Amino acid sequence: MTTEQPGNPMPVGVTRSKYSNRVVLKTILERSDGGLALVGVRVVIGGWVKASKEVTKESLPPPPPPSLPQQKTDDGIGETEPKDSSCMEILQSRIPFLRSIMKGLGCHGNYKLRENSKPLITTPLPPLPLPLPPQPQPPSSSSIAFLRVSDGSCVASLQVVVDSSIVPLSQLLHIGTSILVEGLLGQPSVEGKHVIELKAEKILYIGTVEHDKYPLSMKKLPFERSRDYSQFRPRTTTVASVTRISSALTLATHIFFQHQGFLHMHAPVITTTDCEGFTEKFQVTTLLGKVDKTEKPVMETEGVSLEVIKSAAKEKTMLVEELQRSGSNKEALAAALIDLRKTNELASQFEAREKSKPETSLKAVKLNFSEDFFSCQTYLTVSGRLHLESYACALGNVYSVGPRFRADCAGNVAERSVIEIEMAFSQLEDAMSCADDFFKFLCKWVLDNCPKDMKFVSKRIDKTCMDQLQSLISGKVEKISYAEAVDVLGKVEDKKFEIELKWGSALTAEHLSYLVEVIHKKPVMIYNYPKEVKPFYARLNDDGKTVAAFDLVVPKARTLISGSQNEERLDMLSSRIKELGLPREQYEWYLDLRRHGTVEHSGFSLGLDQMILFTTGLSDARDVIPFPRSYAQADN
Amino acid sequence: MTTEQPGNPMPVGVTRSKYSNRVVLKTILERSDGGLALVGVRVVIGGWVKASKEVTKESLPPPPPPSLPQQKTDDGIGETEPKDSSCMEILQSRIPFLRSIMKGLGCHGNYKLRENSKPLITTPLPPLPLPLPPQPQPPSSSSIAFLRVSDGSCVASLQVVVDSSIVPLSQLLHIGTSILVEGLLGQPSVEGKHVIELKAEKILYIGTVEHDKYPLSMKKLPFERSRDYSQFRPRTTTVASVTRISSALTLATHIFFQHQGFLHMHAPVITTTDCEGFTEKFQVTTLLGKVDKTEKPVMETEGVSLEVIKSAAKEKTMLVEELQRSGSNKEALAAALIDLRKTNELASQFEAREKSKPETSLKAVKLNFSEDFFSCQTYLTVSGRLHLESYACALGNVYSVGPRFRADCAGNVAERSVIEIEMAFSQLEDAMSCADDFFKFLCKWVLDNCPKDMKFVSKRIDKTCMDQLQSLISGKVEKISYAEAVDVLGKVEDKKFEIELKWGSALTAEHLSYLVEVIHKKPVMIYNYPKEVKPFYARLNDDGKTVAAFDLVVPKARTLISGSQNEERLDMLSSRIKELGLPREQYEWYLDLRRHGTVEHSGFSLGLDQMILFTTGLSDARDVIPFPRSYAQADN
Repeated sequence: MTTEQPGNPMPVGVTRSKYSNRVVLKTILERSDGGLALVGVRVVIGGWVKASKEVTKESLPPPPPPSLPQQKTDDGIGETEPKDSSCMEILQSRIPFLRSIMKGLGCHGNYKLRENSKPLITTPLPPLPLPLPPQPQPPSSSSIAFLRVSDGSCVASLQVVVDSSIVPLSQLLHIGTSILVEGLLGQPSVEGKHVIELKAEKILYIGTVEHDKYPLSMKKLPFERSRDYSQFRPRTTTVASVTRISSALTLATHIFFQHQGFLHMHAPVITTTDCEGFTEKFQVTTLLGKVDKTEKPVMETEGVSLEVIKSAAKEKTMLVEELQRSGSNKEALAAALIDLRKTNELASQFEAREKSKPETSLKAVKLNFSEDFFSCQTYLTVSGRLHLESYACALGNVYSVGPRFRADCAGNVAERSVIEIEMAFSQLEDAMSCADDFFKFLCKWVLDNCPKDMKFVSKRIDKTCMDQLQSLISGKVEKISYAEAVDVLGKVEDKKFEIELKWGSALTAEHLSYLVEVIHKKPVMIYNYPKEVKPFYARLNDDGKTVAAFDLVVPKARTLISGSQNEERLDMLSSRIKELGLPREQYEWYLDLRRHGTVEHSGFSLGLDQMILFTTGLSDARDVIPFPRSYAQADN
Repeated sequence: MTTEQPGNPMPVGVTRSKYSNRVVLKTILERSDGGLALVGVRVVIGGWVKASKEVTKESLPPPPPPSLPQQKTDDGIGETEPKDSSCMEILQSRIPFLRSIMKGLGCHGNYKLRENSKPLITTPLPPLPLPLPPQPQPPSSSSIAFLRVSDGSCVASLQVVVDSSIVPLSQLLHIGTSILVEGLLGQPSVEGKHVIELKAEKILYIGTVEHDKYPLSMKKLPFERSRDYSQFRPRTTTVASVTRISSALTLATHIFFQHQGFLHMHAPVITTTDCEGFTEKFQVTTLLGKVDKTEKPVMETEGVSLEVIKSAAKEKTMLVEELQRSGSNKEALAAALIDLRKTNELASQFEAREKSKPETSLKAVKLNFSEDFFSCQTYLTVSGRLHLESYACALGNVYSVGPRFRADCAGNVAERSVIEIEMAFSQLEDAMSCADDFFKFLCKWVLDNCPKDMKFVSKRIDKTCMDQLQSLISGKVEKISYAEAVDVLGKVEDKKFEIELKWGSALTAEHLSYLVEVIHKKPVMIYNYPKEVKPFYARLNDDGKTVAAFDLVVPKARTLISGSQNEERLDMLSSRIKELGLPREQYEWYLDLRRHGTVEHSGFSLGLDQMILFTTGLSDARDVIPFPRSYAQADN
């Protein structure tokens, strides 16, 4: 479907996307010359309008491009593109690295992947049935549109210049409009921060926007509010960067562990085994679907209001918390608190009304789980580590990347990507050493492979986040025992903690913050916790009081990694299960691993969402998880 | 904890596992010389006994090593190791490839990964508290144990020779025993198929086996029966190979798509949006946990028998199906059919008895979902493609690897790993082309990176599977439209199909088998299906009857990949949703993607379990999914 045009120059490094009829913008905009060598080249590009401006031809030379105050933007938190001069600074993109993988693997043959040296960047038009409406006469005073178009491949966007003689500009100007456009790359008509722009010759496709209904059209839509529009969030520069960083972290995880000889396994999501005695369980069942369809849940017809109120209350709680954290705006906080109280009162009234209806009583539930698909009660897994142990106790070292399920205290996030590992013939210090290496590897990978995204989040969200990663790579993670932590914190005189720390109790966020941010000023690994604060499977130390478990804590009191050497002794494990009153029959399969060929083993888990928060400086996990409220999509 | 012993030779390529005190067996056994250059080297290795034999010293030179008929084995389907001579043929392992990735990335610094050239292969003993019982006097007639030890890193196992003067051999001989052992590598004392063996000097750890209770001790445990012991299955050579192949396929997936510029995203598992109108849904709820704990499900106390019978019936059904497929043993099939009928009758009787109890009626269920964690009814996702579209319509090309949930017709497999992709600005043929490339890439990757495992499964399970992969890489996938398929099958004269094929109906397994195995003798991609047999979101073709959807079908009528160009036109999509009577309010967020900046886009999904079955020649998905019955673990 495509042919090369021999008259064109053949710059290296610009490629047509192999499976679509366009050039990926990253290959233009992240060149070390900012794209200068591509002047005069004809390309097809596709993407979404992020900002736009229309000027009449009479007023040419055009005013400064739309990054100036006049611009419209689809990112509510006052986004501006990083200066294009920084394009000159990019010496590295992911592509050379990946090409080297392929070469290293000798991957040739007839399914050859795209070559960066492939010169094809022109695409003759296929005879597509275009969705363009019949084009009216251009207005008598012809004009020009300056569009900033992004295709999600990189932070930067390309300036596309469209003359009103090609297409009615009103179709193009709204933020969020998609276009597929063919044109010539050239130097900008006016000097500015852009190195290159595309002069449109043909518009191949337009996907319009119902302007007044498009949520990202709203002026100054707060970033938090964009959470209500999960389906469009990746169009904001921040969530796009988060997605690219998250994707890089996922690849880095596989590279790291496979390089170390770990085998990837899929730990099951549906399980009967409760790993941590977590209180609110997500149960899985097919029984409810068999209930007579006419018996609709009572709230479905009349209870929408309660749901809306509850959701509002949650959001308002978050707002209050944020205001409390920042501590900058006392008046706003006071107003938010009053607002929250009112909302909560309203919710209580509604709930009381609902509860007075006897037919909604939960006592009515009596299910026969033997008729369930699973023939018993099943849950969504909180942690896959027990299942990983089964594989480690056969195959040595294994890892898993998958969703795990638990609610945060605000009842917000139910599922998150978690990386879990387990290693046979290893002890606590091995797991700590592996966790340390893995953590640093991730930090370095993001700096090396997402330099533009890191620059963007540094500028937008947290100025310190790049330095933080950099210092981690070259520095050391501090390792202290729980006892040392208690000792050190007990001697602190310049601060009074809300909860006084006693040996045996969990360290609160306040304690952790002080340890990490004030005392050590770097991430801290705390090990040998009292057995009471760790899961039953952590190996009991010889003191009979502590277990061989550890946490890696980073600034903002975030526990990034939790790990342990697990109890390999059948008698010890049995008595821990008894001590904690866990349902022993659920763990018989797990105890079997100790009955038959047990080994010393250890492992850990890392929450990908927490790692992204740490990397980007964002503070709310809902901003780094796609569709955190997908279950409530229908209500948007 | 370790020091180098300068007197030792320093063979290249043998490494101590970075996070445990042992040498990984793969680095010894998969050397091109089979390990010969390592003679005289002291190592620590750890693993599980797969076969053993004890001989008295008087009878030395010892009889042939335990791979001969006398051996005990833990793999019920008559496993024998591949001949060690093949070690000489291995020129490639995954490690050089991964090292090249790291170099390409400039990954140095203080978290440096292990270097293959690292000469350390000796490990002085740490003063471990060993779980060895007080060692009794060796028997007067001293003897020697020959153990085959596997650590899961490769198909081959290492022969370890232990003298009874070191440890009472009875502790070591049982299959499944774990040992950590230090010794000297040397040439085997008697000529045989082994190139190298380990002469034990110190036993550092033993994890014994309760022999009579260890399921894999059972002589000739059928491979199918081992499904009941998920926790030990990875110790069988077959499941270990499947795991290594699965792990390689996962890495290959990330490499392929990241190389093509795709971003990985985590598509949500909990969703309100029903993607395909699948009838039996897995519902997620926190409400049941709030039910009064004293109201136990009725079956929990007295209904175990029904559950057991049902489970037996399922297994017997599988057996019948397998016998029917193979068609080799008519008598066995007849017996199995009678057995199955009896079991089903028994199950019916039990069920009838249960149903007569009014208190188990499902009518009693009336839940208030507004009190649920999610404030509405939620399900486990069947497919993430709708959610991927949201990201593709912002970021271009995205992919996801994660669990998806549906029951197969036998009610067996609920969750499986699925790879899904979505590409903006692309059409049906782009998705087909990407699916073709991806499929071939996976085939080549497995051949290149798992040569020993592929050799093993070829020998054990399906002799044709390596040739099949090889021919695919160099050959072409056949592409035919549904109409052509119907046409071709309609002209078949040498076979009468059970269900006559008419335009508009789905192709049955019988039709697909004939197309793939008889007519084309290779995988076939079928496209442009009637709209009735494909999901609502597939793009309607101009004929108004077919949609731009495709399937990649491989031998045994397995649909490996399903894909489509998805409907980007708001009006068409709306009328399809209406036509099919789907709950429109669930899809408003999805329709939004067409309202605001819609683009042509396409994608597909590949079931990892199906790909592993295709690769290995196995026929039951329960053998390639870890813990397919994890929910019923407690019953084992």
